[in-house]
Amino acid sequence: MLDAFSPECPAMTLSELARRAGISLATAHRRAAELVDWGALERGADGRYRIGLRLWEVASLAPRGLALREAAMPFLEDLYEVTRENVQLAVREGLELVFVERIAGRHAVPVLTRVGGRFALHATGVGLVLLAHAPAEVQEEVLAAPLQAWNPKTITNPARLREVLAAVRRNGYAVSDGQVTMDGLSVAAPVVDGSGEVVAAVSLVVHAEGAQPAALAPLVRAAGRGIGRALG
Amino acid sequence: MLDAFSPECPAMTLSELARRAGISLATAHRRAAELVDWGALERGADGRYRIGLRLWEVASLAPRGLALREAAMPFLEDLYEVTRENVQLAVREGLELVFVERIAGRHAVPVLTRVGGRFALHATGVGLVLLAHAPAEVQEEVLAAPLQAWNPKTITNPARLREVLAAVRRNGYAVSDGQVTMDGLSVAAPVVDGSGEVVAAVSLVVHAEGAQPAALAPLVRAAGRGIGRALG
Repeated sequence: MLDAFSPECPAMTLSELARRAGISLATAHRRAAELVDWGALERGADGRYRIGLRLWEVASLAPRGLALREAAMPFLEDLYEVTRENVQLAVREGLELVFVERIAGRHAVPVLTRVGGRFALHATGVGLVLLAHAPAEVQEEVLAAPLQAWNPKTITNPARLREVLAAVRRNGYAVSDGQVTMDGLSVAAPVVDGSGEVVAAVSLVVHAEGAQPAALAPLVRAAGRGIGRALG
Repeated sequence: MLDAFSPECPAMTLSELARRAGISLATAHRRAAELVDWGALERGADGRYRIGLRLWEVASLAPRGLALREAAMPFLEDLYEVTRENVQLAVREGLELVFVERIAGRHAVPVLTRVGGRFALHATGVGLVLLAHAPAEVQEEVLAAPLQAWNPKTITNPARLREVLAAVRRNGYAVSDGQVTMDGLSVAAPVVDGSGEVVAAVSLVVHAEGAQPAALAPLVRAAGRGIGRALG
Protein backbone atom coordinates (compact mmCIF):
# COMPACT_ATOMS: atom_id res chain seq x y z
CA MET A 1 0.00 0.00 0.00
CA LEU A 2 2.96 2.32 0.67
CA ASP A 3 3.83 2.01 -3.04
CA ALA A 4 0.68 4.01 -3.82
CA PHE A 5 2.41 7.16 -2.55
CA SER A 6 4.60 9.15 -4.93
CA PRO A 7 6.01 12.67 -5.19
CA GLU A 8 3.03 13.53 -7.43
CA CYS A 9 0.60 11.92 -5.02
CA PRO A 10 1.80 12.35 -1.43
CA ALA A 11 -1.69 12.59 0.16
CA MET A 12 -4.76 10.49 -0.62
CA THR A 13 -8.27 9.72 0.57
CA LEU A 14 -9.04 6.11 1.47
CA SER A 15 -10.78 5.45 -1.85
CA GLU A 16 -7.88 6.95 -3.85
CA LEU A 17 -5.51 4.80 -1.81
CA ALA A 18 -7.57 1.64 -2.48
CA ARG A 19 -7.74 2.39 -6.19
CA ARG A 20 -4.02 3.11 -6.58
CA ALA A 21 -3.05 0.06 -4.50
CA GLY A 22 -5.51 -2.13 -6.42
CA ILE A 23 -7.29 -3.43 -3.31
CA SER A 24 -10.87 -3.31 -2.04
CA LEU A 25 -12.09 -0.43 0.09
CA ALA A 26 -12.63 -2.79 3.05
CA THR A 27 -9.07 -4.14 2.81
CA ALA A 28 -7.68 -0.62 2.40
CA HIS A 29 -9.64 0.49 5.46
CA ARG A 30 -8.24 -2.31 7.63
CA ARG A 31 -4.64 -1.96 6.39
CA ALA A 32 -4.67 1.84 6.64
CA ALA A 33 -5.85 1.56 10.25
CA GLU A 34 -2.95 -0.81 11.02
CA LEU A 35 -0.45 1.49 9.32
CA VAL A 36 -1.80 4.58 11.14
CA ASP A 37 -1.61 2.64 14.39
CA TRP A 38 2.07 1.84 13.82
CA GLY A 39 2.83 5.36 12.53
CA ALA A 40 3.68 4.47 8.93
CA LEU A 41 0.74 6.63 7.85
CA GLU A 42 -0.78 9.78 9.34
CA ARG A 43 -4.29 11.00 8.75
CA GLY A 44 -4.68 14.78 8.40
CA ALA A 45 -7.52 17.06 9.44
CA ASP A 46 -8.68 16.84 5.79
CA GLY A 47 -9.17 13.06 6.19
CA ARG A 48 -6.39 12.29 3.71
CA TYR A 49 -3.57 9.85 4.41
CA ARG A 50 0.10 10.80 4.25
CA ILE A 51 3.38 9.04 5.01
CA GLY A 52 3.98 9.18 8.77
CA LEU A 53 6.93 10.46 10.72
CA ARG A 54 7.49 7.06 12.38
CA LEU A 55 8.26 5.52 9.00
CA TRP A 56 10.68 8.37 8.30
CA GLU A 57 12.33 7.72 11.68
CA VAL A 58 12.89 4.03 10.94
CA ALA A 59 13.97 4.83 7.40
CA SER A 60 16.56 7.26 8.75
CA LEU A 61 18.49 4.15 9.84
CA ALA A 62 19.10 3.17 6.20
CA PRO A 63 22.90 3.12 5.78
CA ARG A 64 22.52 4.41 2.22
CA GLY A 65 20.17 7.23 3.30
CA LEU A 66 20.79 9.44 6.28
CA ALA A 67 23.80 7.50 7.54
CA LEU A 68 25.65 8.24 4.32
CA ARG A 69 24.39 11.80 4.41
CA GLU A 70 25.66 12.35 7.98
CA ALA A 71 29.13 11.13 7.04
CA ALA A 72 29.12 13.30 3.93
CA MET A 73 27.66 16.51 5.37
CA PRO A 74 30.88 18.27 6.48
CA PHE A 75 32.41 17.72 3.03
CA LEU A 76 29.24 18.84 1.26
CA GLU A 77 29.21 21.99 3.36
CA ASP A 78 32.82 22.75 2.51
CA LEU A 79 31.96 22.43 -1.19
CA TYR A 80 28.96 24.67 -0.69
CA GLU A 81 30.83 27.33 1.23
CA VAL A 82 33.52 27.82 -1.39
CA THR A 83 31.07 27.87 -4.32
CA ARG A 84 27.57 28.84 -3.08
CA GLU A 85 26.19 26.63 -5.85
CA ASN A 86 24.38 23.23 -5.82
CA VAL A 87 26.06 20.38 -4.01
CA GLN A 88 24.51 16.95 -4.51
CA LEU A 89 24.99 13.44 -3.19
CA ALA A 90 23.40 10.43 -4.91
CA VAL A 91 23.44 6.63 -4.85
CA ARG A 92 22.49 4.12 -7.53
CA GLU A 93 19.30 2.12 -7.02
CA GLY A 94 18.86 -0.37 -9.84
CA LEU A 95 18.87 1.47 -13.18
CA GLU A 96 18.31 4.90 -11.64
CA LEU A 97 19.84 7.14 -9.01
CA VAL A 98 18.36 8.50 -5.81
CA PHE A 99 19.40 11.91 -4.49
CA VAL A 100 20.36 11.56 -0.84
CA GLU A 101 21.26 15.18 -0.20
CA ARG A 102 21.27 18.56 -1.84
CA ILE A 103 22.52 21.89 -0.55
CA ALA A 104 21.87 24.96 -2.65
CA GLY A 105 22.38 28.66 -2.26
CA ARG A 106 19.61 31.12 -3.05
CA HIS A 107 21.38 32.20 -6.22
CA ALA A 108 22.47 28.74 -7.33
CA VAL A 109 21.49 27.61 -10.83
CA PRO A 110 18.08 25.86 -10.74
CA VAL A 111 18.20 22.05 -10.93
CA LEU A 112 15.61 19.26 -11.17
CA THR A 113 16.75 17.59 -7.96
CA ARG A 114 14.61 16.54 -5.01
CA VAL A 115 16.05 14.77 -1.96
CA GLY A 116 14.59 11.24 -1.98
CA GLY A 117 13.78 11.67 -5.68
CA ARG A 118 14.89 9.43 -8.56
CA PHE A 119 16.60 10.34 -11.80
CA ALA A 120 18.03 8.60 -14.87
CA LEU A 121 21.71 7.59 -14.79
CA HIS A 122 22.79 8.77 -18.25
CA ALA A 123 22.41 12.56 -18.00
CA THR A 124 23.53 14.07 -14.69
CA GLY A 125 27.12 14.24 -13.45
CA VAL A 126 26.40 11.97 -10.48
CA GLY A 127 24.50 9.61 -12.78
CA LEU A 128 27.43 9.30 -15.19
CA VAL A 129 29.80 8.52 -12.30
CA LEU A 130 27.44 5.90 -10.84
CA LEU A 131 26.83 4.34 -14.25
CA ALA A 132 30.54 4.33 -15.14
CA HIS A 133 31.25 2.28 -12.02
CA ALA A 134 28.13 0.07 -12.10
CA PRO A 135 28.34 -3.67 -12.85
CA ALA A 136 28.58 -4.45 -16.58
CA GLU A 137 25.03 -5.90 -16.70
CA VAL A 138 23.60 -2.64 -15.31
CA GLN A 139 25.50 -0.60 -17.93
CA GLU A 140 24.30 -2.89 -20.72
CA GLU A 141 20.69 -2.65 -19.55
CA VAL A 142 20.83 1.17 -19.44
CA LEU A 143 22.54 1.36 -22.84
CA ALA A 144 20.04 -1.04 -24.40
CA ALA A 145 16.99 1.00 -23.32
CA PRO A 146 15.89 4.25 -25.03
CA LEU A 147 17.88 7.14 -23.52
CA GLN A 148 15.59 10.02 -22.59
CA ALA A 149 16.62 13.48 -23.79
CA TRP A 150 16.00 16.53 -21.58
CA ASN A 151 17.34 18.85 -24.27
CA PRO A 152 19.48 18.72 -27.47
CA LYS A 153 22.68 18.32 -25.44
CA THR A 154 21.60 15.13 -23.64
CA ILE A 155 23.61 12.15 -24.91
CA THR A 156 21.16 9.61 -26.36
CA ASN A 157 23.59 7.70 -28.59
CA PRO A 158 24.73 4.49 -26.78
CA ALA A 159 28.11 4.39 -28.54
CA ARG A 160 28.83 7.99 -27.57
CA LEU A 161 27.70 7.30 -24.00
CA ARG A 162 30.11 4.34 -23.81
CA GLU A 163 32.99 6.69 -24.70
CA VAL A 164 31.87 9.18 -22.07
CA LEU A 165 31.72 6.44 -19.40
CA ALA A 166 35.22 5.26 -20.30
CA ALA A 167 36.45 8.86 -19.96
CA VAL A 168 34.78 9.12 -16.54
CA ARG A 169 36.66 6.04 -15.33
CA ARG A 170 39.93 7.31 -16.84
CA ASN A 171 39.66 10.89 -15.52
CA GLY A 172 38.19 10.10 -12.11
CA TYR A 173 35.33 12.54 -12.62
CA ALA A 174 32.36 13.29 -14.88
CA VAL A 175 31.21 16.51 -16.52
CA SER A 176 27.61 16.97 -17.61
CA ASP A 177 27.44 20.25 -19.50
CA GLY A 178 23.85 21.38 -20.09
CA GLN A 179 22.66 17.80 -20.56
CA VAL A 180 19.78 18.16 -18.09
CA THR A 181 19.13 21.88 -17.76
CA MET A 182 20.78 24.01 -20.45
CA ASP A 183 22.25 26.54 -18.01
CA GLY A 184 23.66 24.00 -15.51
CA LEU A 185 27.05 22.33 -15.60
CA SER A 186 27.77 19.45 -13.26
CA VAL A 187 31.13 18.08 -12.14
CA ALA A 188 30.85 14.79 -10.25
CA ALA A 189 33.23 12.36 -8.56
CA PRO A 190 32.89 8.90 -7.02
CA VAL A 191 32.71 8.09 -3.31
CA VAL A 192 34.70 4.89 -2.74
CA ASP A 193 34.21 2.97 0.51
CA GLY A 194 36.79 0.96 2.44
CA SER A 195 36.18 -2.13 0.31
CA GLY A 196 36.97 -0.21 -2.89
CA GLU A 197 33.36 -0.07 -4.08
CA VAL A 198 31.81 3.10 -5.54
CA VAL A 199 28.89 3.56 -3.12
CA ALA A 200 27.84 7.10 -4.03
CA ALA A 201 28.66 10.12 -6.17
CA VAL A 202 29.05 13.75 -5.18
CA SER A 203 28.63 16.70 -7.54
CA LEU A 204 28.75 20.43 -7.87
CA VAL A 205 26.22 21.95 -10.29
CA VAL A 206 27.16 25.49 -11.32
CA HIS A 207 26.06 28.02 -13.91
CA ALA A 208 27.30 26.64 -17.24
CA GLU A 209 28.37 30.03 -18.56
CA GLY A 210 31.98 30.65 -17.68
CA ALA A 211 32.29 27.42 -15.71
CA GLN A 212 35.72 25.78 -15.59
CA PRO A 213 35.13 22.06 -15.09
CA ALA A 214 38.83 21.22 -14.96
CA ALA A 215 39.29 23.69 -12.11
CA LEU A 216 36.29 22.36 -10.18
CA ALA A 217 37.21 18.68 -10.61
CA PRO A 218 39.98 18.50 -7.95
CA LEU A 219 37.59 20.12 -5.44
CA VAL A 220 34.83 17.60 -6.10
CA ARG A 221 37.23 14.64 -6.24
CA ALA A 222 38.75 15.64 -2.90
CA ALA A 223 35.25 15.82 -1.37
CA GLY A 224 34.46 12.35 -2.75
CA ARG A 225 37.65 10.96 -1.23
CA GLY A 226 36.91 12.64 2.10
CA ILE A 227 33.44 11.16 2.26
CA GLY A 228 34.78 7.71 1.37
CA ARG A 229 37.33 7.96 4.19
CA ALA A 230 34.63 9.12 6.64
CA LEU A 231 32.59 6.02 5.74
CA GLY A 232 35.55 3.87 6.76
CA MET B 1 9.79 -6.35 12.29
CA LEU B 2 11.00 -2.87 11.28
CA ASP B 3 10.61 -1.87 14.94
CA ALA B 4 13.55 -4.16 15.74
CA PHE B 5 15.91 -1.63 14.14
CA SER B 6 17.24 1.23 16.24
CA PRO B 7 20.13 3.70 16.17
CA GLU B 8 22.01 1.30 18.50
CA CYS B 9 21.13 -1.69 16.34
CA PRO B 10 20.94 -0.68 12.66
CA ALA B 11 22.21 -4.04 11.25
CA MET B 12 21.23 -7.55 12.36
CA THR B 13 21.56 -11.20 11.41
CA LEU B 14 18.32 -13.11 10.84
CA SER B 15 18.44 -14.72 14.29
CA GLU B 16 19.04 -11.35 16.02
CA LEU B 17 16.15 -9.93 14.01
CA ALA B 18 13.84 -12.80 15.02
CA ARG B 19 14.82 -12.48 18.69
CA ARG B 20 14.34 -8.69 18.81
CA ALA B 21 11.03 -8.89 16.91
CA GLY B 22 9.85 -11.76 19.12
CA ILE B 23 9.01 -14.07 16.23
CA SER B 24 10.18 -17.52 15.14
CA LEU B 25 13.18 -17.95 12.88
CA ALA B 26 10.95 -19.39 10.15
CA THR B 27 8.56 -16.42 10.29
CA ALA B 28 11.48 -13.98 10.35
CA HIS B 29 12.99 -15.73 7.32
CA ARG B 30 9.77 -15.43 5.30
CA ARG B 31 9.03 -11.81 6.30
CA ALA B 32 12.63 -10.68 5.77
CA ALA B 33 12.54 -12.15 2.25
CA GLU B 34 9.33 -10.21 1.53
CA LEU B 35 10.81 -6.99 2.89
CA VAL B 36 14.06 -7.44 0.93
CA ASP B 37 11.98 -8.11 -2.17
CA TRP B 38 10.11 -4.82 -1.73
CA GLY B 39 13.27 -2.92 -0.75
CA ALA B 40 12.35 -2.12 2.85
CA LEU B 41 15.38 -4.15 3.93
CA GLU B 42 18.75 -4.72 2.28
CA ARG B 43 21.07 -7.64 2.95
CA GLY B 44 24.78 -6.81 3.02
CA ALA B 45 27.79 -8.86 2.00
CA ASP B 46 28.13 -9.75 5.71
CA GLY B 47 24.68 -11.42 5.63
CA ARG B 48 23.21 -8.84 8.00
CA TYR B 49 19.97 -6.98 7.33
CA ARG B 50 19.72 -3.19 7.21
CA ILE B 51 16.97 -0.69 6.41
CA GLY B 52 16.71 -0.36 2.63
CA LEU B 53 16.88 2.69 0.44
CA ARG B 54 13.40 2.03 -0.98
CA LEU B 55 11.88 2.53 2.46
CA TRP B 56 13.84 5.76 2.81
CA GLU B 57 12.55 6.89 -0.58
CA VAL B 58 8.91 6.31 0.37
CA ALA B 59 9.51 7.85 3.78
CA SER B 60 10.92 10.95 2.12
CA LEU B 61 7.31 11.74 1.16
CA ALA B 62 6.37 12.27 4.83
CA PRO B 63 5.16 15.89 5.06
CA ARG B 64 6.70 16.20 8.52
CA GLY B 65 10.04 14.76 7.38
CA LEU B 66 11.79 15.82 4.22
CA ALA B 67 8.94 18.00 2.92
CA LEU B 68 9.22 20.22 5.99
CA ARG B 69 13.00 20.12 5.69
CA GLU B 70 12.91 21.22 2.04
CA ALA B 71 10.73 24.23 2.88
CA ALA B 72 12.95 25.10 5.82
CA MET B 73 16.38 24.59 4.23
CA PRO B 74 16.98 28.11 2.81
CA PHE B 75 16.18 29.65 6.21
CA LEU B 76 18.31 27.12 8.07
CA GLU B 77 21.21 27.90 5.73
CA ASP B 78 20.83 31.62 6.34
CA LEU B 79 21.00 30.99 10.08
CA TYR B 80 24.06 28.80 9.58
CA GLU B 81 25.87 31.27 7.36
CA VAL B 82 25.65 34.15 9.79
CA THR B 83 26.61 32.06 12.84
CA ARG B 84 28.57 28.94 11.71
CA GLU B 85 27.05 27.16 14.71
CA ASN B 86 24.41 24.39 15.03
CA VAL B 87 21.06 24.97 13.36
CA GLN B 88 18.33 22.47 14.20
CA LEU B 89 14.77 21.74 13.11
CA ALA B 90 12.51 19.44 15.14
CA VAL B 91 8.90 18.28 15.35
CA ARG B 92 6.96 16.80 18.26
CA GLU B 93 6.04 13.11 18.07
CA GLY B 94 3.96 12.15 21.10
CA LEU B 95 5.88 12.95 24.28
CA GLU B 96 9.22 13.38 22.52
CA LEU B 97 10.72 15.34 19.66
CA VAL B 98 12.32 14.12 16.43
CA PHE B 99 15.16 16.06 14.81
CA VAL B 100 14.31 16.61 11.15
CA GLU B 101 17.44 18.54 10.21
CA ARG B 102 20.73 19.71 11.59
CA ILE B 103 23.42 21.82 9.99
CA ALA B 104 26.65 22.30 11.88
CA GLY B 105 29.96 23.91 11.20
CA ARG B 106 33.22 22.11 11.94
CA HIS B 107 33.86 24.36 14.93
CA ALA B 108 30.29 24.40 16.24
CA VAL B 109 29.72 23.38 19.85
CA PRO B 110 29.15 19.57 20.08
CA VAL B 111 25.49 18.55 20.53
CA LEU B 112 23.67 15.24 21.13
CA THR B 113 21.55 15.58 17.99
CA ARG B 114 21.08 12.99 15.22
CA VAL B 115 18.76 13.60 12.26
CA GLY B 116 15.89 11.12 12.61
CA GLY B 117 16.73 10.74 16.32
CA ARG B 118 14.42 11.32 19.29
CA PHE B 119 14.94 13.46 22.35
CA ALA B 120 13.00 14.50 25.48
CA LEU B 121 10.89 17.68 25.28
CA HIS B 122 11.85 19.31 28.58
CA ALA B 123 15.54 20.10 28.06
CA THR B 124 16.45 21.39 24.60
CA GLY B 125 15.41 24.75 23.17
CA VAL B 126 13.33 23.16 20.40
CA GLY B 127 11.80 20.79 22.96
CA LEU B 128 10.73 23.66 25.25
CA VAL B 129 9.09 25.45 22.30
CA LEU B 130 7.26 22.29 21.15
CA LEU B 131 6.17 21.49 24.72
CA ALA B 132 5.03 25.06 25.42
CA HIS B 133 2.70 24.86 22.40
CA ALA B 134 1.60 21.23 22.81
CA PRO B 135 -1.98 20.32 23.83
CA ALA B 136 -2.60 20.59 27.60
CA GLU B 137 -2.84 16.80 28.01
CA VAL B 138 0.62 16.34 26.45
CA GLN B 139 2.10 18.96 28.80
CA GLU B 140 0.47 17.32 31.83
CA GLU B 141 1.75 13.88 30.85
CA VAL B 142 5.32 15.18 30.43
CA LEU B 143 5.16 17.13 33.70
CA ALA B 144 3.75 14.11 35.58
CA ALA B 145 6.57 11.78 34.51
CA PRO B 146 10.09 11.88 36.03
CA LEU B 147 12.13 14.54 34.19
CA GLN B 148 15.54 13.19 33.18
CA ALA B 149 18.55 15.33 34.07
CA TRP B 150 21.53 15.54 31.69
CA ASN B 151 23.46 17.71 34.11
CA PRO B 152 22.84 19.92 37.18
CA LYS B 153 21.33 22.70 35.04
CA THR B 154 18.54 20.54 33.53
CA ILE B 155 15.15 21.62 34.90
CA THR B 156 13.60 18.62 36.67
CA ASN B 157 11.14 20.48 38.91
CA PRO B 158 7.65 20.45 37.30
CA ALA B 159 6.58 23.77 38.87
CA ARG B 160 9.74 25.50 37.59
CA LEU B 161 9.24 23.92 34.16
CA ARG B 162 5.65 25.29 34.06
CA GLU B 163 7.03 28.81 34.62
CA VAL B 164 9.59 28.33 31.86
CA LEU B 165 6.91 27.14 29.42
CA ALA B 166 4.73 30.17 30.23
CA ALA B 167 7.73 32.42 29.54
CA VAL B 168 8.34 30.67 26.20
CA ARG B 169 4.75 31.41 25.14
CA ARG B 170 5.02 35.00 26.37
CA ASN B 171 8.43 35.76 24.79
CA GLY B 172 7.95 33.87 21.55
CA TYR B 173 11.20 31.95 22.02
CA ALA B 174 12.95 29.54 24.38
CA VAL B 175 16.45 29.56 25.82
CA SER B 176 18.09 26.38 27.07
CA ASP B 177 21.35 27.37 28.73
CA GLY B 178 23.58 24.37 29.42
CA GLN B 179 20.58 22.17 30.22
CA VAL B 180 21.69 19.36 27.89
CA THR B 181 25.41 19.86 27.31
CA MET B 182 27.04 22.30 29.75
CA ASP B 183 28.85 24.29 27.06
CA GLY B 184 25.87 24.64 24.69
CA LEU B 185 23.24 27.36 24.70
CA SER B 186 20.15 26.97 22.54
CA VAL B 187 17.74 29.66 21.36
CA ALA B 188 14.59 28.23 19.74
CA ALA B 189 11.45 29.61 18.11
CA PRO B 190 8.19 28.11 16.85
CA VAL B 191 7.27 27.41 13.22
CA VAL B 192 3.59 28.27 12.80
CA ASP B 193 1.76 26.97 9.73
CA GLY B 194 -1.08 28.66 7.83
CA SER B 195 -3.69 27.27 10.21
CA GLY B 196 -1.96 28.87 13.21
CA GLU B 197 -0.63 25.59 14.57
CA VAL B 198 2.95 25.19 15.86
CA VAL B 199 4.17 22.39 13.58
CA ALA B 200 7.91 22.55 14.27
CA ALA B 201 10.63 24.41 16.14
CA VAL B 202 13.89 25.84 14.87
CA SER B 203 16.95 26.52 17.01
CA LEU B 204 20.48 27.81 17.04
CA VAL B 205 22.84 26.08 19.47
CA VAL B 206 25.96 28.14 20.20
CA HIS B 207 28.85 28.05 22.65
CA ALA B 208 27.33 29.06 26.00
CA GLU B 209 30.29 31.21 27.01
CA GLY B 210 29.70 34.78 25.87
CA ALA B 211 26.41 33.90 24.15
CA GLN B 212 23.77 36.64 23.96
CA PRO B 213 20.41 34.89 23.78
CA ALA B 214 18.45 38.15 23.51
CA ALA B 215 20.48 39.14 20.45
CA LEU B 216 20.05 35.73 18.81
CA ALA B 217 16.30 35.50 19.47
CA PRO B 218 15.14 37.87 16.68
CA LEU B 219 17.27 35.95 14.19
CA VAL B 220 15.79 32.57 15.17
CA ARG B 221 12.24 33.94 15.41
CA ALA B 222 12.52 35.45 11.93
CA ALA B 223 13.71 32.08 10.58
CA GLY B 224 10.74 30.36 12.26
CA ARG B 225 8.35 32.85 10.68
CA GLY B 226 9.97 32.44 7.29
CA ILE B 227 9.66 28.65 7.41
CA GLY B 228 6.01 28.93 8.47
CA ARG B 229 5.32 31.21 5.53
CA ALA B 230 7.11 28.83 3.14
CA LEU B 231 4.86 26.02 4.38
CA GLY B 232 1.84 28.10 3.38
